[in-house]
Amino acid sequence: MRVLFNEELKAVADDLDHLVRNVRDAIHDAGRALLQQDLDVAQQVIDMDVETDTLSASVVDQCVRLLARQNPVATDLRVIVATLRLAITFERMGDLARHIAEAARRTYPQSPLPAAAQPLFAKMQDFLDITADRLVIMLADRDTEVAEQIIRDDDQLDNIHKQTFELALAEDWEGTRQQVVDIVLIGRFMERLGDHAVSASRRVVYIVSGFDPSKEPSRDEGTDID
Amino acid sequence: MRVLFNEELKAVADDLDHLVRNVRDAIHDAGRALLQQDLDVAQQVIDMDVETDTLSASVVDQCVRLLARQNPVATDLRVIVATLRLAITFERMGDLARHIAEAARRTYPQSPLPAAAQPLFAKMQDFLDITADRLVIMLADRDTEVAEQIIRDDDQLDNIHKQTFELALAEDWEGTRQQVVDIVLIGRFMERLGDHAVSASRRVVYIVSGFDPSKEPSRDEGTDID
Repeated sequence: MRVLFNEELKAVADDLDHLVRNVRDAIHDAGRALLQQDLDVAQQVIDMDVETDTLSASVVDQCVRLLARQNPVATDLRVIVATLRLAITFERMGDLARHIAEAARRTYPQSPLPAAAQPLFAKMQDFLDITADRLVIMLADRDTEVAEQIIRDDDQLDNIHKQTFELALAEDWEGTRQQVVDIVLIGRFMERLGDHAVSASRRVVYIVSGFDPSKEPSRDEGTDID
Repeated sequence: MRVLFNEELKAVADDLDHLVRNVRDAIHDAGRALLQQDLDVAQQVIDMDVETDTLSASVVDQCVRLLARQNPVATDLRVIVATLRLAITFERMGDLARHIAEAARRTYPQSPLPAAAQPLFAKMQDFLDITADRLVIMLADRDTEVAEQIIRDDDQLDNIHKQTFELALAEDWEGTRQQVVDIVLIGRFMERLGDHAVSASRRVVYIVSGFDPSKEPSRDEGTDID
């Protein structure tokens, strides 16, 4: 029984690893689609999101089945509950990457972002690229130091995000309203990717330490510019 | 053992009911704060979100403890897993209502919305008010008909949401860039409230029928205006 259980835990961990790699690729590629007007890559992100959704649903299924058939306790239970929540978070991150790719596709061959905004969005993307790589390492090694790095660094993303609002409202910038709309929406998608990475990191801290991060509400503090 | 289990299930169901009522109130009040420039109500929504977060975390805790101590199967397991996911969804809905209240507070005594946009946002709010009431009924009665109504009707919200983009981009409307920013952000918050209501409804269908709604990815289709 225990052997079977361990095999099934291993199988779901492998699927979760596959899922986070998909999400990492989606984040990298969505950035490339957005900042380099690459239509093929945009389409690839959009197409791949279907696989990400299916994989996420399968991980959730496996977790529920493990909970039903095994009666796991202590660490095993923590791992399964956290895995279920991570799968939901990663599915959402895939959606957000897809939205960015869709915005890039909509305006192709133009960028949805005006030239003045590109450096700020490139900075946000650099940040998200690093975060995406960290997510993969964090999960593979159950590395709480990496998790805490992700949690700590998210303020940097929020700061760049705030600057995109300042740009959109700056008097010496002559953008169109459509550009304002895109800056706000794409900025929001990127900021939310960072928030979800923080939330995933809290789950990994929970797996390893048993500290219950559900005591802290989901992060979504960076939007309001008051 | 079974008696104790049923008592604990009842306790978590009561807390979930309390949680969804908090969320309903937050949605109603956020709309009042937004559309009637009511600063006290805005502050109330913002303050109450702390309680919603705590209650959501407590429901998640209780679910994990039930999973650990009981080895629930079949319907019980479905109820507990769905309750855990509902608590996370409702916490997020509380955040979104808080964001709307924060936007209203930021521009008080002015509205963050230009006069031209108010009728559209009032329509979105009317829709969300009805949805919020339906969520409470759906959960109290585990009513899949109400759940399916919520799922089916969400397109209406998406349609009004699309019209807010059309307004923000209309040539004959002379809005400021700040107003465009607010239309996009507040519109997004409201659209996401609808999406989360759909997701909550799928969980209730899952509890009652055993049909696994995790097969369907989270709804977030209404934003892209291409």
